[in-house]
Formats: sequence, C-alpha cells, structure tokens
Amino acid sequence: MLSLEAELDGLAGRLFGALREMSFDGVGITRECFTDTETAALRLIEAEARRLGLETEWDAGANLWATLPGREPELPAIACGSHLDSVPQGGNFDGAAGVIAGLLALGRLKAEGFAPRRSLRLLALRGEESAFYGQAYLGSSALFGRLGPADLAAVNVARPQSLGEAMAATGIDTGRVARGEALIDPAGLAAWLELHIEQGPVLVARRMPAAVVTGIRGNLRHRAVECLGEAGHSGAVPRWLRHDTVFAVAELITRLDRHWRTLLERGRDLVVTAGILGTDPAEHALARIPGRVTFSLDIRSQSRETLEAFYDLFLSECAGIAEERGVRFDPGRRLEAAPARMDEALVGLLREELRGMGQPDEPIPSGAGHDAAVFAQAGVPSAMIFVRNANGSHNPREAMEMEDFHVGAELLRRGLARLAA
Amino acid sequence: MLSLEAELDGLAGRLFGALREMSFDGVGITRECFTDTETAALRLIEAEARRLGLETEWDAGANLWATLPGREPELPAIACGSHLDSVPQGGNFDGAAGVIAGLLALGRLKAEGFAPRRSLRLLALRGEESAFYGQAYLGSSALFGRLGPADLAAVNVARPQSLGEAMAATGIDTGRVARGEALIDPAGLAAWLELHIEQGPVLVARRMPAAVVTGIRGNLRHRAVECLGEAGHSGAVPRWLRHDTVFAVAELITRLDRHWRTLLERGRDLVVTAGILGTDPAEHALARIPGRVTFSLDIRSQSRETLEAFYDLFLSECAGIAEERGVRFDPGRRLEAAPARMDEALVGLLREELRGMGQPDEPIPSGAGHDAAVFAQAGVPSAMIFVRNANGSHNPREAMEMEDFHVGAELLRRGLARLAA
Repeated sequence: MLSLEAELDGLAGRLFGALREMSFDGVGITRECFTDTETAALRLIEAEARRLGLETEWDAGANLWATLPGREPELPAIACGSHLDSVPQGGNFDGAAGVIAGLLALGRLKAEGFAPRRSLRLLALRGEESAFYGQAYLGSSALFGRLGPADLAAVNVARPQSLGEAMAATGIDTGRVARGEALIDPAGLAAWLELHIEQGPVLVARRMPAAVVTGIRGNLRHRAVECLGEAGHSGAVPRWLRHDTVFAVAELITRLDRHWRTLLERGRDLVVTAGILGTDPAEHALARIPGRVTFSLDIRSQSRETLEAFYDLFLSECAGIAEERGVRFDPGRRLEAAPARMDEALVGLLREELRGMGQPDEPIPSGAGHDAAVFAQAGVPSAMIFVRNANGSHNPREAMEMEDFHVGAELLRRGLARLAA
Repeated sequence: MLSLEAELDGLAGRLFGALREMSFDGVGITRECFTDTETAALRLIEAEARRLGLETEWDAGANLWATLPGREPELPAIACGSHLDSVPQGGNFDGAAGVIAGLLALGRLKAEGFAPRRSLRLLALRGEESAFYGQAYLGSSALFGRLGPADLAAVNVARPQSLGEAMAATGIDTGRVARGEALIDPAGLAAWLELHIEQGPVLVARRMPAAVVTGIRGNLRHRAVECLGEAGHSGAVPRWLRHDTVFAVAELITRLDRHWRTLLERGRDLVVTAGILGTDPAEHALARIPGRVTFSLDIRSQSRETLEAFYDLFLSECAGIAEERGVRFDPGRRLEAAPARMDEALVGLLREELRGMGQPDEPIPSGAGHDAAVFAQAGVPSAMIFVRNANGSHNPREAMEMEDFHVGAELLRRGLARLAA
C-alpha cells in the first residue's frame, strides 16, 4: 500500500516535470490551446493512463478521456478532470494539477482493484484559457454545443489564424461546433469534480492546504475596446483643440477604478481588470498625439446583477468622456460567462470527506472562472476542490507545494470513490 | 520673368510629388532618419540644385549643402533650409517644405543673375524627428557637436540598431560626433532662416497664409517611463492585494492632465503628451493583471521654469501613486531641449517684408521644436517662417495649399536677398 502511494507520488512529480520541460518558453510555461504543444501534453497523459490500465479515447472535441469502467456502464458516469492549456508565460500547475490529480485517483483505484458501480472517467480538456482568442472555456463549451460561428471567427492575438482554423487543424469537426451540436450527452455524466490550484491568496492567508468551492464568478468582457480621437503634433495642438485618446482612456480607467472601490465598500463581489492596453504601434512617435488606444476589459462577479450594474457604469462613463473630449469609443463584441453555483449535495459530500481527513474545512468562492462552470450550466452536478498556491497564477512564479497537492488529490479520490461505489 | 516663376512653381510641385512617391508607406510618408530613404530624398534635391546651377557638397554629418557663392565668400554666409526626414506614417510637407522653398529661392536668384555679397546656402538636414530614436534635432545637434555617447547609444524603436550604428551606416564619422566635435563652424553662418509648415491650427484659425515665428518651445521628455507591479490572475486577486500597473498609470496620467489644466488656467504655456503607452505584449492575456506598463512623456513650454515645475509635479505624483498602489516607477533617461528665442533683428526684417508683400503680419510662437532652436543655441542668429497647414502634422492628412507655400517661399527669398545683398 505504502509503495503504491510512493509510486503515485513519484508519478505526479515526473508528470509535472515532463509537462514543464515540453512547454517551457524561456520565461514561463506556454501551452497554447489547439496547437501541437497542447496535443503533446494530452498524449503524455494518454500514455500514462494506458500504463496504469485505464481505457482511453478521444472525443469529437479532440479532448482525452481515460476510463475505469463501472459494473453498470450504462449508468451516467462520475467524471473528473481539468484543462491542459496555459496562458503565455504562465505557470505549470494551472489546469494540469486537476488532470494529474484525476489520473492519480483513477490509477490508485484501479491498482487497488476497486470495482465501481458507475464508470469513473478522467477528462483532459483543451482550451480553457482566454489568452489567445479572448474567450474562456473553449474546449468545454464546444463539448456542450455552446460555441457558434462568431466564436469560431475570433482571431488569435499573435497571428492571423481564427479559432475555427486552429480547431480544425487539431482534427475537430468545426461544422458540428458551428451548428451548436453537443459533442457529448450531458445526461451521460452524473457528476463533474474539478481540482484546481487556487489562483488567489486566500488559502495561503488562511493556512489551509485545500478547500471546497461554493461557486464560480461569471464575467463580462471586451477583448479590445477602441478609443478613436485625432492624431496630431504633440507640441503644436493646444489642450482645447485635442482629441487625445490616452488622456481619455486614462480618465475612463480611473473613473472605473473609483466605481469599483465604491461597490466594494457597499459589499458587492467584483473585480475589474484592463490587462491589455496600448496605443497603436504603427503610429508610435514621441511627438505624436495618440489618435487611437485599445484596451481589454474584464469584469467579474458572483452576481449577475453586479456585473450588469458595473457594465452600465462603463457604458455611461464612455459616453460622458466621449462627449467631453471629442473622442469615440467602440467597445466591439461583448463576451459573457454566467456565474455558476456548485451542486450542494456534492459540496456537502466533499466537505465531509475533507473533515474526515482531519483537515480544516472552510469553503470559498472561486474568483477565477473554470470549466466546472460550463458543466454546471449544462446541467451536470459539479463541484471543485482548490489547492493552496502562492503567487497567484497566469505567471511563472505560481507555487503549489506537492504536499498540498496530495491533500487535494486524496480528497478527489475519496469523493470519486464514494460517488461511483 | 513670368515663365521663370511658372517654371519654379512647376518644379515645387514635381519635387513634392517625387518625394511623396519615393517615401509613401501605404498610409502616409515614412522617411526614416539615417536610412537610404532619407539619403534618396537628399540626392533628389542635390540633382535639382545642380540643374539650377548651384554648387553642392556634403558635410561631415552627411547633410547636403547647395550654394550660390557670394562676391565676398570669406564672409559668414546666409543660410536657409530644414530637414528631409519624417515620422512613420507622417505627412509630406513637414521639413521638406523648407528645403524646397530654399531651393526655389536660390534657384530664382541664380536665374535672375543676382550676385550676392555673402554666399547664400541651402542646407538639407537629416534626422530632425524624434520618432525613431526618442530625441529630436539629431542632424543639427551632430553638426554643432551637441551629441554624446549616450545619445549615440539610443536604440531604434523598431529594430536592434543604435543611432550611432545608423549614422555610421550613412557614412558619418561617429567618432567625431561622440567626442562632441562641431562638424561646421557656427561663426561661418551669419543667419539661419527656416521655413516650415505650421503644425498646429493657429494660421488656419486666423486666416493667414504665413507668419514669422517669435520663439520655439523647449521640452523635457522620457521615451519610456516604466511602471512595475505584480502580474496575477484577474479574477482571483482582490483589489486590496493588487499591484496593478494599468490602474496606477491611468491615475498618474489623469492627475498630470489635471495639473496641466490648472497651469493653463494660470496662464502658463504648456503642452503634455503621452504618445506611446502600453502593457507588455509578451505577457498579454485578458485574464492577467498587468505587471508592467510603459509610457512616453513629452512636456513642452516656452518657459524653462514651467517645464521644470511640471516635471517636479510628475516626479511627486509618481512617488505618491507608487506608495499608494505598491508599484514602482522607473523613468529612465531624461531628455531635454531648451526653449529658444528667435533673433529680433531677423524677425523684424521678415515681418517688414511680409507686410511689404501685402500680407497680414501677426507673429506667433512655435509649439513644436525645430532645427532653428539648435542654430539659435549655437549662436547663429535665427528666424522662422510658418506656412498655413490644415490637420496638423505627423499624420498623413497634413494639408498645405501650394498658394500658401509660395507666399512663404517668396518671403524667404526676399529675406535671403536682403541679408546677402
């Protein structure tokens, strides 16, 4: 028994190491969605799953499934997993931890001769991060028929390739995706459990190795709001004749920051980020009044009402500044991801198991979005396990201790075993 | 006489057309300093100057001189001219108008058999714009020994080439430039007259085809102020734990805008521009808190005191925001160009000639910087003529009417003839 645990501990270390090696970009980890790098990561998991005696297959969305078949395989299965893609220059654990934890759980149950009533399935997903096409949950959304032609037309931030082209190059039938066909039947899944590193500082602050998640923030987003003014010579156009887009956007962002602070003071759940901001490199000159600025906007809350209230403030501030400063705002396409509640029965079961392990149990909401939100919205009862992680995520310094990872992975294994028994 | 004027009118049109054709970039005009494109423009002027019977030569700064020799060539010469480089996607008249006006003036005086006492010289300069190396007046500063090793080390915004390397590739002895050696003797010039399009809207508003300039704004600049914070996941890091550089820089720019407005209300001469602004493309992701923002700062005034007062406000706002938001500002190298006054006697002479032509005479200050500032600081009595121009400059829509250009060119010719006689 001890040697099996030790073997699985070693396996986790080897898999994280191999993933890091195959996707290190010189600064951090880049596993871009719907590319060969992502496929290589999935194939690494596939080979290991087979070695552990699990059955593997690929779905029509080019995601990997590994299965420990149940005694009554016609019953809806108990599934777990996460995603294997990353943001550019990101960390190695965001997503991968959930896939490797699921593999350890199924591998150990298989090795112990556990014969579940329902099939236990691990899903390694593609395309959860929004970094390359501006929209999150691409892999899981495609799986449940939630993408359309407008989503597939989104163009990669770094090169002239659309999401549809990248998906097709990965072997996905994008015709089915464009028609909104579900690629799997959500009724075939009785539960979705997703382990993920916490991407914020709460578990570090509370000194807890893991926690069960109560709900997932939704978001409203714009990839590129455009502010259009008038270029001119910086020395020769006086203030009253300017249509200066940098001053306009700086004022807009400063006003949004003030509204954010006010809403927080009133107890609302909200985070606001303009992660991408810039003047037009084609017209860059120290002595030119910038005629064009673009910026991204990411508004997140657990409350749909707060999201819409802040969005209305955004639109009205744009209108006011446009009038005062003689500029124009073109927000472009609005992207949405609804907030999601986790399944109460699953949350209760996981919390019970966590306490049974002698760990502190204090459930927390998820500030970041996760594929579990898409499963929940598709009607699959869902729950999440967070593992403590320092320095946040989406950066190369994310830091999860393997000891904490094994607490989360053991909680996942216990939950899966109870649900499938 | 009429046919000579018509011929010179046609010549101006042909030269502007040829320059446009050889440097159109698909959007506007790009004649990058110290490149073959700029050299080709200088060679076009050289060929035309010879055809008009003028003597031509190249100085050690690789600038072109065309001369109508005086009867007493040992006397300090009367010089005119401007620059032939442009910003990227700029207009065709900024700089070139002054070179072509000088060529028309000397060509006509030569054709009329005018034999001046002092030599009349046209100088077509390189590298006036700051767009590519962050600093203006490169060609004229090199000429008067005002560049040093730190200037030569400045790197091109678009590729890994230093100013020194680009100058050397153009045939300039950068050793002499680095040692601060003057490449010409300012005592050899009795006057510098520079015709230039106005880069602001004043002459259009006042319905004047041309005006004499009283002084030139100086500037304080930073090519790239860096704001450093901490990257993180946009959804998972709450406001109080953020070190968000976009919110920090937006607040800084908004505060500077407020100070600018206040100083204007107190009657100070000031313009402030952040023409280049952006998050780090290498870490771009919609869901990442931006850990790094850079922006350029261009502060201009006719008063050295106002420049320094505003600069102090900039530094103190940086310090305050850094403390409040847990970010750090690194302003990098400070670049300076002192304000310059035009020579009173030359201004008076040009104004007299302008009135003599039956034109309205209302002198204006120059908001933008010009090579004439460098000549004035080197001790050469200097003056400038502005020609009306719509839509500003440093953009493809700059619009000078040829009728206005000929008013300015004729004023230049009259001024040169009187000074050299």
